[in-house]
Amino acid sequence: MRVAIMGVDGYLGWSLAQYLASYGHVIGGMDAYLRRDWVAEVGSHSATPIAKMTERLDAFYQVFGKSLRFVRGDITEYEKVKEFLRGFKPDCIVHLAEMPSAPYSMISANHCTWTHANNLAGTINLLYIMKEEFPECHLLKLGTMGEYGTPNVAIPEGFFDIAYRGRTDTLPFPRQPGSWYHCTKVHDSVNIHLACKLWGLRSTDIMQGVVYGVTLPEMLTDPRLLTRFDFDEAFGTAINRFVAQALVGVPLTPYGKGRQARGFLPLCDSMQCFRLAIENPPEQGEYRVLNQFEDVYFLDELANMVAHEANEVGYSDIKAEVANIENPRLEAEEHYYNPDRKKLLDLGYKPNGDIRGTIRSMLCTVAEYMYRINSHKHVLIPKIRWDGTKDTCQRL
Amino acid sequence: MRVAIMGVDGYLGWSLAQYLASYGHVIGGMDAYLRRDWVAEVGSHSATPIAKMTERLDAFYQVFGKSLRFVRGDITEYEKVKEFLRGFKPDCIVHLAEMPSAPYSMISANHCTWTHANNLAGTINLLYIMKEEFPECHLLKLGTMGEYGTPNVAIPEGFFDIAYRGRTDTLPFPRQPGSWYHCTKVHDSVNIHLACKLWGLRSTDIMQGVVYGVTLPEMLTDPRLLTRFDFDEAFGTAINRFVAQALVGVPLTPYGKGRQARGFLPLCDSMQCFRLAIENPPEQGEYRVLNQFEDVYFLDELANMVAHEANEVGYSDIKAEVANIENPRLEAEEHYYNPDRKKLLDLGYKPNGDIRGTIRSMLCTVAEYMYRINSHKHVLIPKIRWDGTKDTCQRL
Repeated sequence: MRVAIMGVDGYLGWSLAQYLASYGHVIGGMDAYLRRDWVAEVGSHSATPIAKMTERLDAFYQVFGKSLRFVRGDITEYEKVKEFLRGFKPDCIVHLAEMPSAPYSMISANHCTWTHANNLAGTINLLYIMKEEFPECHLLKLGTMGEYGTPNVAIPEGFFDIAYRGRTDTLPFPRQPGSWYHCTKVHDSVNIHLACKLWGLRSTDIMQGVVYGVTLPEMLTDPRLLTRFDFDEAFGTAINRFVAQALVGVPLTPYGKGRQARGFLPLCDSMQCFRLAIENPPEQGEYRVLNQFEDVYFLDELANMVAHEANEVGYSDIKAEVANIENPRLEAEEHYYNPDRKKLLDLGYKPNGDIRGTIRSMLCTVAEYMYRINSHKHVLIPKIRWDGTKDTCQRL
Repeated sequence: MRVAIMGVDGYLGWSLAQYLASYGHVIGGMDAYLRRDWVAEVGSHSATPIAKMTERLDAFYQVFGKSLRFVRGDITEYEKVKEFLRGFKPDCIVHLAEMPSAPYSMISANHCTWTHANNLAGTINLLYIMKEEFPECHLLKLGTMGEYGTPNVAIPEGFFDIAYRGRTDTLPFPRQPGSWYHCTKVHDSVNIHLACKLWGLRSTDIMQGVVYGVTLPEMLTDPRLLTRFDFDEAFGTAINRFVAQALVGVPLTPYGKGRQARGFLPLCDSMQCFRLAIENPPEQGEYRVLNQFEDVYFLDELANMVAHEANEVGYSDIKAEVANIENPRLEAEEHYYNPDRKKLLDLGYKPNGDIRGTIRSMLCTVAEYMYRINSHKHVLIPKIRWDGTKDTCQRL
């Protein structure tokens, strides 16, 4: 299939291009390199050294034997996106071109407004371009499990049947986002759902859990193929940051009590799920919601798991230890959490299941770049607080 | 109380300034005159001739004996809004400064994106300015009953208690907006709810039905105090448009089968409800949702009611008749509809209840401006279709 990846320079985008190419798909991509700018703005960089796009594309061609049709451009530029897609003629558009960080969206009023304008305009542009040019194309849009928040009932996949005051209906499951970034994902879901109803478009809205991991087998053949590995408070995800902390010998820091439960999945599972959704598109006019995660873990459980594996592996001279710190976020630290994830299993998803093995492999790969984390240790401690203040979080 | 009205030049804003002043409140206001621009963009004008803001302010001072502190400015300009509010020191901010038309938002991708950027940024700016400068101020935000769509169950006021798969919770009631404009109102509701949780702000989110009417008693003393009366397909509301059609002798046009049920309320009831919400603010930290309408009517029932009153009153030589036309919207034309509206009654809301009398009074007032409708008859027939085409809707 012909797959256009919007945001192909990012953590998931660059990985997905390679993964899908290894399955024989033809890949196009667009990116404005904003992820590189945002991470620089928060004073950090990727632990893995990231090649320039020209170098990435050269390596891609050499390893996969076919070129990736790339255009530099911003997804908010309607005409530019339309021109790129017209030239590429996608069967599926994977939309990964959004600002993906909850803390970044909470920095200021301006960051909040910008995140809304950017994330919403990108999705709206794709929907209108699909309506006008590619009504049969499949939009695969990256949302987040965080759209649901932590309700006191089970979390279905997008919709639920309810009985209320003597009558019944099937309705969108209520969303309770916990940051401006999460709000933008909820808004996108509402908008995509409407576009499918209005214009008969087909879309898969992925409610993805927190991804961890640094490599796919494809990347190990050429360093230019490595994807990013962020460890700062804004763009680094939880397990990735625990791994970075363990390697440079600072405490692993769950926020607050650490009893927040979330869905997690390794990078290879994320790729597998995307592929299954792409190769099994929804019906024309269908708005399909898939919950995408391997399993649910507590944050402190994961911190202890990473510390344990780090001490077993012994890459650092300093014993890894877990130290809970003030929670910069506003979130329930103890709560019920029971999300479904049946639809991807039905499509054939085979969970990796070996979280400890993945963590050991991450420690091994990232150890090579320890010096790049050491030089930017200050970004490991959060200071973007949901209450708007900017005081460094203290040990509890 | 000191009440800042954002969007004070609009249909509701200009009415509310006068109504609240007559109850002794001190009024400030900001506006960028965008409503005047949008109506011109769709090729129309207000049936009532609208005075310039300088003239409006002069009349306001003469009639109410106190000035309205006005600043021309756009709500998306953060610093300008902050400066205005700092100078005025409001107890309550009434936010009416959004693009309010479903059809306008559906014209093109650009109109959709602009409506999102404008409406969301305005609300975000107010929330951040309140957090930083006025944490005890009450935000009264205008949403719409259209946020709920037409579910097959009763519609509570914002939240509902559910039992789902053996557990219970109180959750936001699912929203099913039917146009991009309605989507922006849903997004605002999500964002305001989060801000109240994050920062302990207090807000009332008004889910308002469709307003009809042209004058308040205050306006009859000076023509410069008249508010707008739009009759075009984008900015005119249903009953107001039926009145305009009856006066110029063209058929009254419910869309499709006309069996859509909606909540409606006269302008004077809208003002009364706003005042009750302002004078009875929610607790600090509370996000309060009020459903605001007088009663539920079918669209064809209203068209027949206006035609009947017009023929009784006899302002037009031509007998008023009802002719259903193609529905430019995508909406259920026959559906269950049972929304609550208990909270405003508990606050003391006394519904006007005399819809036929209000319609007769509207016919009488607007008859004076019949020539201004006659010169712009073409805007009475819709051509902005939800499917993206622009063909004039035909008689069924």
